[in-house]
Formats: sequence, structure tokens, C-alpha cells
Amino acid sequence: MNETDRSMLGRVFRLLECFSVARVRMTQSELSRRTGLPLPTVHRLCTQLVTNGALERATDGRYQIGVRLWELGALAPRAHGLRQIAMPYLEDLYEATHENVQLIVRDGLEALYIERLSGRAAVTVVGRAGGRLPLHASSGGLVLLAHGGGELLDAVLEAGLERFTPNTITSEHRLRQVLDDIRRRGFVVCREHLNLGTLAVAAPVQRPSGEVVAAISVVIGADVDPAPLIPALRAAARGISRGLTTEESSTE
Amino acid sequence: MNETDRSMLGRVFRLLECFSVARVRMTQSELSRRTGLPLPTVHRLCTQLVTNGALERATDGRYQIGVRLWELGALAPRAHGLRQIAMPYLEDLYEATHENVQLIVRDGLEALYIERLSGRAAVTVVGRAGGRLPLHASSGGLVLLAHGGGELLDAVLEAGLERFTPNTITSEHRLRQVLDDIRRRGFVVCREHLNLGTLAVAAPVQRPSGEVVAAISVVIGADVDPAPLIPALRAAARGISRGLTTEESSTE
Repeated sequence: MNETDRSMLGRVFRLLECFSVARVRMTQSELSRRTGLPLPTVHRLCTQLVTNGALERATDGRYQIGVRLWELGALAPRAHGLRQIAMPYLEDLYEATHENVQLIVRDGLEALYIERLSGRAAVTVVGRAGGRLPLHASSGGLVLLAHGGGELLDAVLEAGLERFTPNTITSEHRLRQVLDDIRRRGFVVCREHLNLGTLAVAAPVQRPSGEVVAAISVVIGADVDPAPLIPALRAAARGISRGLTTEESSTE
Repeated sequence: MNETDRSMLGRVFRLLECFSVARVRMTQSELSRRTGLPLPTVHRLCTQLVTNGALERATDGRYQIGVRLWELGALAPRAHGLRQIAMPYLEDLYEATHENVQLIVRDGLEALYIERLSGRAAVTVVGRAGGRLPLHASSGGLVLLAHGGGELLDAVLEAGLERFTPNTITSEHRLRQVLDDIRRRGFVVCREHLNLGTLAVAAPVQRPSGEVVAAISVVIGADVDPAPLIPALRAAARGISRGLTTEESSTE
């Protein structure tokens, strides 16, 4: 593979990464504008990506991510693989609470939702499966941060603790206290850290080696007492952990 | 993009498509053997794909599909988008039945599972989310085939009606009868068409225009009476259909 090839793969991902929850369908002109690539290049890339099933054309002619890419993505052990193991427990937790139930892994300095069961009656939360949230400001992110090691914490502190609400953890001192607390107690309760009006509880999912590979969380209204939820949350996290072998959900 | 680029993108997808449910992690040697690409080429492609997050390295050094690809795939309107709309209804159906509940779309001549809620106590079924099944031998596939038009039916007949069990539909005459029946009644019951011991019921998910974009199915034991399930199945399918606008789940 020469330099042309390399930049070509870079261009392909630049194009694919234009798509987002807010922009699931785009014309070639929009893709050209967002990538900065010339229209003829975008045209040729789109044609090739359609041939390979990575993109599809919607009824209106715009491009969208294709089911083939979804199918490939579904093979990611840290996402879909983990999700398959977790689903029965997430469903039990959802049936028990009828609140928003989430499965979260870390990708770089962000928490990434792998699954979100969201009842129509449950409190409305920001994001969706595939959405990303900052580690320091989400309950699942804090759990992953608590078990991510010193280098990760340094990187998060370096990046800065952005404030989302008056309750967001923005001081290193308080963050270290909360992380110690998570490691000691095995769960975290975050009241309005990220959104006003919601409260989130989270617990770690661990491999037999003790390595924390994911977190699960439940989001409820900020006026609800979270105490009755904690045992069910922790039981679900332990159930998923038991389902993990050393193989599943392995990370880099 | 020149010929080199084009074949390069082809090689990338050839490599990515080596991964499957049965092979979620592979070494460079395995990838080289399966793609027929020289090891140095595989090495360079893997390195680039890791850089772009499409691949990750597992703890044992093998390659696996990365969460970034999962995240991109989650933007596919015909898969994850549809799934988001359908989930509350699938969950209701699951809670009502505690049996295997599936959401299915068509990709080419195959039925593709977008979602499968599978209770630990439910009957064991072949496949998983992301799995593919033949259109003529699965309940959801038959629903999609019934509404897929004459060209699709011709292509399916041309490909041949493979037999999986003594009950699989293998004659064009019987297939046409069943498809007529599905269009008339709005659902299908398949007893042991694909697997011995299981029975599946399916109903169509339609856009406001009437276009059928997906099917939902419930799989139960072959000795269970499906009749009490049908109203819940059809209600769930109608619920999802109501959630679709002309935008969602649009196809090429």
C-alpha cells in the first residue's frame, strides 16, 4: 500500500464519519462540503462504497450507511458481542424498573453507549445507542474511569473537566474522591451531573480477571429515591460479569 | 480514484468480510490465508484499519472489528434506525410472550436480523442479530418476499428453494399460495420450516405509503398453539408501522 492508498482509506473514513445521529442521510454535495473533498472524488467514493454495501441510497437519492456496514459493526466484540451477553440481564433490569437502562464501554476519552433500553414512559435522556458522553460527567463513564488506571485519569484531567450542570464534577479533588468511592462501594449515584432533572446510577461489569470492561446504568428522575434500584443494578452487573469469559469483550 | 484505489477498497472489504459470528478474532496469517492477500499487504491494511478504528487488537494480539465500525453501522437507517423505533414494541411483545422476538429486513435475497430479544427461558433458535436466513424458509423472510414484488420472487425462484426440513416450502406453487395468503391475512405461521421443533409467526411493518420495510416474528416451540400470539404480534407490527414516517428505514 502506497501513500495514495493510505490517504484513500483516510478519505473513505472521513466521508463515512460525516454521518451522525443528526445527519443520517446526505447528498454528494453535502458530503463534499463536509469533507472538503472535490465532488468528483466524493462521487467515485460513494459509488464504490455502494458497491461494497457500506452505503445505500435512500428513496430520495441521498446516501445513508448501509445494512452491510451495520452487519460488520455487529461483529465488534466490545460492542455487539458484549451486548448479546448482557441483553437478558438488561431486559430483566428494564422489566424490574421500566426506566432507561444502558450498557456502556470506553472508547478513548469517551463513554460509548452500546445499548439503551428505553421505555416509552421512562424519563427522557440525552443520547442513544452509539452516542458518546464524557467520562467525568456520566455515571457509566465515572465507573469506567474509576477502573481505567492512572494514565487514563491523567489524560481526562489534561483534557479538562467540562461543566454541564452545577453538579458536574469539575475539580480534580472531588473527582478523585468519587473514583475512590466507586472502587470501594462498587457503584455510583450521580444526581444531575450531566442533565438537570435526571439521576443516574451505574455499576461495573468485570471479567473473571477483575478487569472492568463495561458499565451498566439506570437513569431515573432526579426526584426519585435511587436506593431501591441499587441491588437490582448490581445483581444485573454481576450476572453479565459471570457471562464473560476471558475471551468476550476483550479490548486492545 | 484510479484502479489501484478501487481494488484497494475492494481489498479492505474483502479483509473485513473475513470476520463472522464464528470468527470474531483473527491473526494476520489467518486473514492472509482467507483473503488470499500477501501477508505484508494484510499487515499494512490492518495497521491502517486500526488507525481508523475499524479494527482493534484483542488482548491476545488478534484483530477484531472495532467499536468505531459498530458506531458507524449503528447509523444505518434500515438497521439501527428502524430498531430504535421498534424497540419499545419489541420489548412489549417480549414481555407479553417471553419468547424469541425478532425484527427482520431484507438485504438482497436474504432476511437479515436487525434485533432479537431472546429470553434465557425461551426456545433456542438458530442465528442472532446480524445473522441471515433464506427468504423462502423463514417466517419473516416470507413476509418480506410476499411484499417484495415480482422481480424479487423471480430471483428467489431462480436461486432455488433449498430444503431445510420436511416442511420447508420447496415448490413454486406452494410458495405462491403462501405469499398470497400472507398478503390477504397479514401474517404467516411457519411450523418447522427451517428448524425442527420450532414454530414462527411473522407480520409486516409498513410505512404510511404501504411499503413493507421490515417484518417482526416470534419463535416458539412447535408444540405450542400460536393463535393467542397473533393479536399481540400484529398489534406490535402496527405500532412500529405507526412510528415510521416516510423518512425512516428508507431503502434504495
